[in-house]
Amino acid sequence: MLHGKVLIAQGGGPTAVINQSLVGAVLESRRVATVERVYGALNGVKGIVGENFLDLTQETDANLERVADTPGSTLGSTRDKPDLKYCQEILKVLQAHGIGTFFYIGGNDSSDTLRIVSEQARASNYSLRCVHIPKTIDNDLMENDHTPGFPSAARFVSQAFAGVNLDNAALPGVYVGVVMGRHAGFLTAAAALGRKFPDDGPHLVYLPERPFAMDAFLGDVKATLDRIGRCVVAVSEGIHDAAGTPILALLATELEKDAHGNVQLSGTGALADALTEQVKTKLKTSRVRGDTLGYLQRSFLGCVSPVDRREAREAGIKAVQFAHWNGTDGSVALKRVGNYDIDFQLVDLKAVAAKTKVMADAFIAPSGNNVTAAFDDYLRPLVGADMPEVYRLRAHKVPKILKPTK
Amino acid sequence: MLHGKVLIAQGGGPTAVINQSLVGAVLESRRVATVERVYGALNGVKGIVGENFLDLTQETDANLERVADTPGSTLGSTRDKPDLKYCQEILKVLQAHGIGTFFYIGGNDSSDTLRIVSEQARASNYSLRCVHIPKTIDNDLMENDHTPGFPSAARFVSQAFAGVNLDNAALPGVYVGVVMGRHAGFLTAAAALGRKFPDDGPHLVYLPERPFAMDAFLGDVKATLDRIGRCVVAVSEGIHDAAGTPILALLATELEKDAHGNVQLSGTGALADALTEQVKTKLKTSRVRGDTLGYLQRSFLGCVSPVDRREAREAGIKAVQFAHWNGTDGSVALKRVGNYDIDFQLVDLKAVAAKTKVMADAFIAPSGNNVTAAFDDYLRPLVGADMPEVYRLRAHKVPKILKPTK
Repeated sequence: MLHGKVLIAQGGGPTAVINQSLVGAVLESRRVATVERVYGALNGVKGIVGENFLDLTQETDANLERVADTPGSTLGSTRDKPDLKYCQEILKVLQAHGIGTFFYIGGNDSSDTLRIVSEQARASNYSLRCVHIPKTIDNDLMENDHTPGFPSAARFVSQAFAGVNLDNAALPGVYVGVVMGRHAGFLTAAAALGRKFPDDGPHLVYLPERPFAMDAFLGDVKATLDRIGRCVVAVSEGIHDAAGTPILALLATELEKDAHGNVQLSGTGALADALTEQVKTKLKTSRVRGDTLGYLQRSFLGCVSPVDRREAREAGIKAVQFAHWNGTDGSVALKRVGNYDIDFQLVDLKAVAAKTKVMADAFIAPSGNNVTAAFDDYLRPLVGADMPEVYRLRAHKVPKILKPTK
Repeated sequence: MLHGKVLIAQGGGPTAVINQSLVGAVLESRRVATVERVYGALNGVKGIVGENFLDLTQETDANLERVADTPGSTLGSTRDKPDLKYCQEILKVLQAHGIGTFFYIGGNDSSDTLRIVSEQARASNYSLRCVHIPKTIDNDLMENDHTPGFPSAARFVSQAFAGVNLDNAALPGVYVGVVMGRHAGFLTAAAALGRKFPDDGPHLVYLPERPFAMDAFLGDVKATLDRIGRCVVAVSEGIHDAAGTPILALLATELEKDAHGNVQLSGTGALADALTEQVKTKLKTSRVRGDTLGYLQRSFLGCVSPVDRREAREAGIKAVQFAHWNGTDGSVALKRVGNYDIDFQLVDLKAVAAKTKVMADAFIAPSGNNVTAAFDDYLRPLVGADMPEVYRLRAHKVPKILKPTK
C-alpha cells in the first residue's frame, strides 16, 4: 500500500510521450487516499540530492493533461549516473522528506539507479517502494516488447525517410541519413517502415548489430545506383567496424566523451559528412547529400504515435497500481499480446537495470544491409493507424515525336 | 482561351504542397472543353527536351487527390537552368506536340525559364500561353506576400525548434540548428514562431539579411547562457560575413558548387559543426550540440499547413483560369488581403523572374540576432490554426529540509 509522499522523477533523454507517463503516475497517485503528497523532482536524481521538488498535489487535472501532450521532460532531466555514494545521498533526502514511494521514469541507466536505491533502502531498513517506468527512444530495454517513446520516434524517422525518398526520387542522387542509436538499431530500422512502392527508399539500412565495412557500403551504394539511378541510405550513428570501433571515431578527429566514457555520437553531422565524402570521391557520383536527423527525432513537436501516447500513460498508471498492490519493487514491462495489445507486468529491477537489448536476428536481412518483413510486422502496430501514406501518378507515357524510340 | 494540349512541369526543390498545384492545374484544365490533352513533363525542362511526357488526361480524380496530398514533386524535378538555346529546344518540342499552354511550377529560376520560352514563342510567332505557378520553401519570390510551400516548411521548422527548445530545457546546454535559405531568412526566422514562454528558444536567430560576425555570435551565446543557463540558436545556412563570403566557405575546406556557381550549402553538417566547435573551444562550455535540419524541412511526410495546402491548390487552379480568360502570359502571385485572406493576381513574368525577395527590415530586430513581433504577425496566419502548443507545470517548489535556503 502506498504511504507517505510519492516522488516522481524523469531521467535520460526526453521523448515525445515521457510526460504522459509522468501525468499517469501523478493522477493515479492522487487517487490513492493514503498518499500524503505527490512531488516531482527537478532534473532527475540531480534534483533529488539538491532537494529541488515541485509539489504536484495541487496541479490542476486540466493543466496536467496539457503537459501530458507536450513532448520533452517537463520536470527536467539529467545525465548523472549515480554511484553508491550518490544513491545514499538520494536516500537521505527521500528519508528527510518522508518519501514512501519513488517512481523513476527512464532507460537502463535510470533503472540501475533505482536498483541501487532500492537495495540501499532495504539495507538501511527504510520503507521505500521503488518502481521504474520504462522510457527510451532507443527501444533497448530488456523484458519489454518495446519501450514508451520509441514508437513516436520511430514514426518520426519513418515519416522523415518517406519524405526524403520522395525528394530523392524527384532530384535523384545519393542521400545518407544518420539516425540515433548507439548499440540498438531499432530506430534506424524504422526508416524502412514508410516504403510502399518496390523502388522506394531507404534502399540500404546499416545497423549497429552488424559490423560496418566501408568497401561493402560503397559497393552496396553503387549497385543501387546502377539498378535505379538513385540511393537512399539509413545509417545508425552507432555503426562500428568488426573490432567494435565506431566508424565516427575512425573518421573524425576530435571527439567528446560523456560521463559513461562513451564517445558523443549525436549533435554532430560528422558521420553523415564522412560517409557522403567517401561516396563522392570513391564512386565519383554527383548530388550526394547527407543529413543527421539529430535531436528532431526525439523532440519534434507534433509527431506522436497514438499507441505510444496511450501506452506511456498506462505505464505511469500501472506503476502506481503495482506500487500500491504489490509487495515488491520492480520495473514496469510491456509484454505484447496477440496482434496487437499490451499487457503490463512488474519485473525484477535487476532484469532491466544497465542491460541493453538489441535487434533480433530475424529483424535483420541476411545481407546485413536491410531489415526484414518480420521487423515491419513488429513495428507496424506501434506507430498508429493514422500514418500518412504516399501515392504516385499512374498515367502512361506519351509516345515521342521528334526522337521516337523503337 | 485554352487551345491544343496543356503541358505542366515542376522545377527546383520539391515542397510539401507542390503536387497540390499540379493537381489543381490538371483538374481545372480538364474542365475546359477546348483542351485536347493534359500532359505532365517528367523532371521539369529536362523532360521536355527529352520528350518525356505523361498523359494525365485519364488519371482518375481519386488518384490525383491522393497524389495532391503526397509531398515531393511527383513528376520529378530538375536543377537545369536553361539558356536561350535550351529554351529554343523546349519550344521545338512543344511545337511538335501541339502544346498550346505551358504551366511551370517553380521558383525564380523556373519563372525565368518561362520568361525566355514566352519571349521566344512570340518571336517565332508560335501561339503559346505561358503561366508560372509559384513555389519555393525559401519564400523569396517578388510580388508575392508569400509562396506556396513556404508555410508548410515554416511549420516544420517552427515545430522542430519548439521541440528542440523543450529538449534543451530538460538537458541544458547550447544548441545550434541550421536552417535552409541562401539569401532569404524567412525559413530560419520561422524557428521563432513556436516560442510561448518568456525563456523559450530559439534565443538567437541569425539571418542572411545581416552580416554574421563570429565574435558577436559568441558574445550573444555567452550572454544568453549567463542569463538563463542555456541557449538555442537558429542559423540560416546562408549566413555570410560583411564582405558577403558564406561563413561555411570560411570554415569548410572542400565545397561543392552547383550549375549556378553557388557553393552547395545543404546536405552537409559542416556549418553546424563549425559553429558548435567555436562555442565549445571559445566559451569553454559543455553540452554543445549542432543539428542541420537538412532535407527533412522541405520533404517531411505529414507536416503540412492547411492554409498552404489550400493556397497551393488554388494557385494551380487560378493559373488555368488566367491562361483561359486573360490574353497575356504571366506569373500567378499571392497578395495578402486583410487578416487574413489571399487574392490571386497575374503579374508580369519579368517582375518575378530571376529576382530574389529578402526579409523586410521590419521583420528583423535592430540587434540583428532575432526577429520582431511583426514577423510573428506575418507568419502566424500562414501555418494554420491547428499548430500544436507547448505547456508547463505551474506547481510551486517544496521548501528544502536538509539545506534550507533563507
